[in-house]
Amino acid sequence: MTRGELKYEGKAKRVYATPHPHEYVVEYKDDATAFNAQKRGEWAGKGATNNAITAHLYPQLEAAGIPTHFLEKLSEREQRVKAVTIVPVEVIVRNTAAGSFSKRLGIEEGTPLSRPVVEYCYKSDALGDPLINTDTAVALGWATAEDLTRIRELALQVRDFLVPYFAARGVNLIDFKLEFGKLPGGEIVLADEISPDTCRFWDAETGEKLDKDRFRRDLGGEAEAYAEMLRRVTRPA
Amino acid sequence: MTRGELKYEGKAKRVYATPHPHEYVVEYKDDATAFNAQKRGEWAGKGATNNAITAHLYPQLEAAGIPTHFLEKLSEREQRVKAVTIVPVEVIVRNTAAGSFSKRLGIEEGTPLSRPVVEYCYKSDALGDPLINTDTAVALGWATAEDLTRIRELALQVRDFLVPYFAARGVNLIDFKLEFGKLPGGEIVLADEISPDTCRFWDAETGEKLDKDRFRRDLGGEAEAYAEMLRRVTRPA
Repeated sequence: MTRGELKYEGKAKRVYATPHPHEYVVEYKDDATAFNAQKRGEWAGKGATNNAITAHLYPQLEAAGIPTHFLEKLSEREQRVKAVTIVPVEVIVRNTAAGSFSKRLGIEEGTPLSRPVVEYCYKSDALGDPLINTDTAVALGWATAEDLTRIRELALQVRDFLVPYFAARGVNLIDFKLEFGKLPGGEIVLADEISPDTCRFWDAETGEKLDKDRFRRDLGGEAEAYAEMLRRVTRPA
Repeated sequence: MTRGELKYEGKAKRVYATPHPHEYVVEYKDDATAFNAQKRGEWAGKGATNNAITAHLYPQLEAAGIPTHFLEKLSEREQRVKAVTIVPVEVIVRNTAAGSFSKRLGIEEGTPLSRPVVEYCYKSDALGDPLINTDTAVALGWATAEDLTRIRELALQVRDFLVPYFAARGVNLIDFKLEFGKLPGGEIVLADEISPDTCRFWDAETGEKLDKDRFRRDLGGEAEAYAEMLRRVTRPA
């Protein structure tokens, strides 16, 4: 598929227009960033791995009744997706305390939460993706109350699919970040990736981190951890 | 009334037990703190002014149908209140962008919000009262979902009373912080103070700040501003 104009370049992906007005091509880069891009790195195969993991999961989410932007994997690093307008509200679903949540609230990492916590951040690199709530998103015009209700519902459906999916593959899904887009007709669909960049994956037996925390925290072995996650995601339960 | 054991000492108030198990005495101090007590000061009359403003407003909130902990003003600095267990979730109601909200989200101070925004913080000096949402409060056991629904409802009722009350006295209520308590029977009631320590008050004509931002931002004239707010609060509309 012919790539057109670069529509958007994020920290780990580029989005291109295509000859079809309702479709984009997403290209996964090998760049890794953390702490709002204050820390930067890259490793060979990262983009391909995240593309493969996402492309393996999205059709299964669709089959589970969750509308997504995904159409097909085009190449090692590319996907064809529906053209959406990204809602500038990132959604974090937490099953277990970790990362910024643990730090902010003084809750030890690894503490299970008695129920899932859905957090919202305003998608703004300049502001460091600040925590917001739904009132704020509506008052400032970032999303409608109806969109946010639907987004929450879909985020919890994604959780209900992913938690047992990963558990069956020896992985504890600690938390994950989702983004949603709007189709021209107004329908909210899941967009962006689901990968070790956007999820915390802990090995269910050893507790070993199999996600971007290896890079964030200088633990080493990030390429191996991402490859291991691709193996687990694509293996039968 | 005889004061008993000191139950709690906060940055601006002390709470004492009394011979009546279901009643406390609240004493207002002259201490002023800001930025989670990194900045400290005091001025004569601050405690008396905040006590007088709160004691003037609370019976009117009760009359408007909002249950509160307030019983009576005892002395210049003291109130008798119902003994409650404070819910460790502070509630901030915002009508206009200001303060931490403006800073965090890059919204210019003074920008009106298209609808009120209710924010929640975990009441913890050690953590700097971090922003949370209702999912987090429930998951970590700080409040039940039912309590939080009631708290939000009451907070918006307080807003609906205070906004026109202050407008009629030439004051724009920018935002305010509330705390709620639980009676032994489980009823949620408004607690704490309503004063220039806990509200942003801007003169409706000049925009002059008549609240703790005078102290926080070294603007000077804090004693005069608080006294002016007491005059306005206690004058007929």
